[in-house]
Amino acid sequence: MAAEIVNPRSDSESRNGPTERENGAEPLDSFDPAFALHRGGKMAVQATVPIRDKDDLSLAYTPGVAKVCSAIAEQPDLVHDYTWKSSVVAVVTDGTAVLGLGDIGPEASLPVMEGKAILFKQFGGVDAVPIALSCTDVDEIVETVVRLAPSFGGVNLEDISAPRCFEIERRLQERLDIPVFHDDQHGTAVVSLAALRNAARLSGRTLGELRAVISGAGAAGVAIARMLVEAGIGDVAVADRKGVVSRDRDDLTPIKAELASFTNKAGISGSLEAALAGADVFIGVSGGTVPEPAVASMAEGAFVFAMANPDPEVHPEVAHKYAAVVATGRSDFPNQINNVLAFPGIFAGALQVRASRITEGMKLAAAEALASVVGDDLAADYVIPSPFDERVAPAVTAAVAAAARAEGVARR
Amino acid sequence: MAAEIVNPRSDSESRNGPTERENGAEPLDSFDPAFALHRGGKMAVQATVPIRDKDDLSLAYTPGVAKVCSAIAEQPDLVHDYTWKSSVVAVVTDGTAVLGLGDIGPEASLPVMEGKAILFKQFGGVDAVPIALSCTDVDEIVETVVRLAPSFGGVNLEDISAPRCFEIERRLQERLDIPVFHDDQHGTAVVSLAALRNAARLSGRTLGELRAVISGAGAAGVAIARMLVEAGIGDVAVADRKGVVSRDRDDLTPIKAELASFTNKAGISGSLEAALAGADVFIGVSGGTVPEPAVASMAEGAFVFAMANPDPEVHPEVAHKYAAVVATGRSDFPNQINNVLAFPGIFAGALQVRASRITEGMKLAAAEALASVVGDDLAADYVIPSPFDERVAPAVTAAVAAAARAEGVARR
Repeated sequence: MAAEIVNPRSDSESRNGPTERENGAEPLDSFDPAFALHRGGKMAVQATVPIRDKDDLSLAYTPGVAKVCSAIAEQPDLVHDYTWKSSVVAVVTDGTAVLGLGDIGPEASLPVMEGKAILFKQFGGVDAVPIALSCTDVDEIVETVVRLAPSFGGVNLEDISAPRCFEIERRLQERLDIPVFHDDQHGTAVVSLAALRNAARLSGRTLGELRAVISGAGAAGVAIARMLVEAGIGDVAVADRKGVVSRDRDDLTPIKAELASFTNKAGISGSLEAALAGADVFIGVSGGTVPEPAVASMAEGAFVFAMANPDPEVHPEVAHKYAAVVATGRSDFPNQINNVLAFPGIFAGALQVRASRITEGMKLAAAEALASVVGDDLAADYVIPSPFDERVAPAVTAAVAAAARAEGVARR
Repeated sequence: MAAEIVNPRSDSESRNGPTERENGAEPLDSFDPAFALHRGGKMAVQATVPIRDKDDLSLAYTPGVAKVCSAIAEQPDLVHDYTWKSSVVAVVTDGTAVLGLGDIGPEASLPVMEGKAILFKQFGGVDAVPIALSCTDVDEIVETVVRLAPSFGGVNLEDISAPRCFEIERRLQERLDIPVFHDDQHGTAVVSLAALRNAARLSGRTLGELRAVISGAGAAGVAIARMLVEAGIGDVAVADRKGVVSRDRDDLTPIKAELASFTNKAGISGSLEAALAGADVFIGVSGGTVPEPAVASMAEGAFVFAMANPDPEVHPEVAHKYAAVVATGRSDFPNQINNVLAFPGIFAGALQVRASRITEGMKLAAAEALASVVGDDLAADYVIPSPFDERVAPAVTAAVAAAARAEGVARR
């Protein structure tokens, strides 16, 4: 992939000694706006208090700071009031499932983690710090995050491959009293559910009347299935590369066996295509391509959410031939299912009330709040708001904070 | 200690339900400027690139970011060019030796770590992130920091108790290719040496003519002794609570046994007071009080650096009766030995050239640069510059970067 982006000028420059590439100085096409933008990274730390003179220094650092430390030592909850702990989230990855790139390691994942961090800030007012780990073992990741957790108000797990991501999240949430949230699972599920709620409203149907088919049984697919069931979907079947996950398969991982236990009431077995026949909803989180005849076989007025990036499982032009509502993961088509609609507000709401975890109820509340932003403007090409709609984060934040209080996980 | 700072109003307010203290809302004297300043923490994260619209988003995040990730995956050194890695330092503690407060745990140490982080930014332009760990075992700390190191350009160890701090630093530097620097050791040593160089210059003597006595064989004492020997001190003896560390003692830890091997050429044994008789330099990094007669017994024109905070081992008024140069750790007396004179520039210089470590030569260069800022203004009450002298960080940064190149540890 890097072949396309190597600076073509480096050869000619080699006459004057080592090429810039060899120096590591300017190996890439500096005219590529993505590289130009990333030069030096995308984030910084700033002081929020002045340090202009020794009086300032004696308050922010020694000796003044000692009083604050002593107070926290005596009354540990004060750490939330007198440090940035309750404002800051660790964005933790091991670099094993980065975007569509796969296992590229921690350093190469950092541009994504920085991007995530600045989205937290921009859209939710939440400070976030990229923590890309050099280990991939579940025990090691869990222990590492537990050890660094005192400094953070929450943990956003990111781009960790399935099935390890499920166990890592579960064990971390058991060990920690701050929210642990795997965005690739739950962020995607929240936004998908919001879009689905609005699609259903547009077509005058309830979720209970709908049968959905999810392509992909990884982090996102499993979480979306779970959330649709929580939200009252009529039925949902999940297909992996070998076909529909069903109780009669003997090749299921423990996660997929659990999935089989609460999905696919219809008892479908066989291919994704078979499951799509007559289905009301397609949700693609797998990549690959769904053949047009399978899309054509869906029920009248179907919803097609083809979220693979950059190539949707069903191209919107094809989907529109058969479906009433079409959504993708891309910003250049209407109805973009983008996690940035969810995670900033979810963490902002959780941090605001110092929630100890992010419950199913909080996620459902986030999806409802997100769906409700669309309001009376609801239309086939507008079932989900834009990431730049300034109503989104406040609505999600307020709903999540209220749900945390209602569910008894808020601490203020 | 916290008794002094509990809000006396909380009792009267309890008539209206739970006291504010019970709510965790406002338990402390909000008129105390240290608490007022610390409310909500002292730092934040900021984006350094714009995210105004979907075009910005598609460069800083998907899909544009994928190209940058792929390039780093292919050519790992590019992580320094296209992320904030080479700008950001982890400030790592386990909360076991915080200021004069001791083992107060990770959460209570956070105000100090945030303070350190904003000093890095303010004085060195270095981004820094507080990482307070919930483990104290040497192996666990080492493994944890190794695992999170991909995200950082350097590691500043802070307020970790001796003797664990020595082993943690050594093992981390062996495992990592980024600088690992325990500031309580080396920052203090660099600034002390700078002050000593200028005191010697003022009195027309060389370091080789001086015999120094250090009170305290913890992190700072050991590092100062090592650095003074590197710099060519005539002799240095270090005293712990049991007296002077010498080869004839049979109660020495491995670190102190090593200390005995390269200090105390004079073969002094016995008390700190005995060692001070005729000594040219006293360096206090222990707390406690040195009896006035012992100060009086030092050589003519002695230097007294009494750095304990808030109570110097020798009060400056007493020290001035006998000593030619007096320094303390306090900002309200002249000649403040303050680590902030060193660590921001040391890391800024190391990061600038992507040094793989911070060598003895780089620390000596930092001390010389720091001493040289004083220049022709040298006087008994001005052997070390003010932390707010804007010449300091650039001078230290340049000297450290040059020394890194000279020592072959620079990577650009």
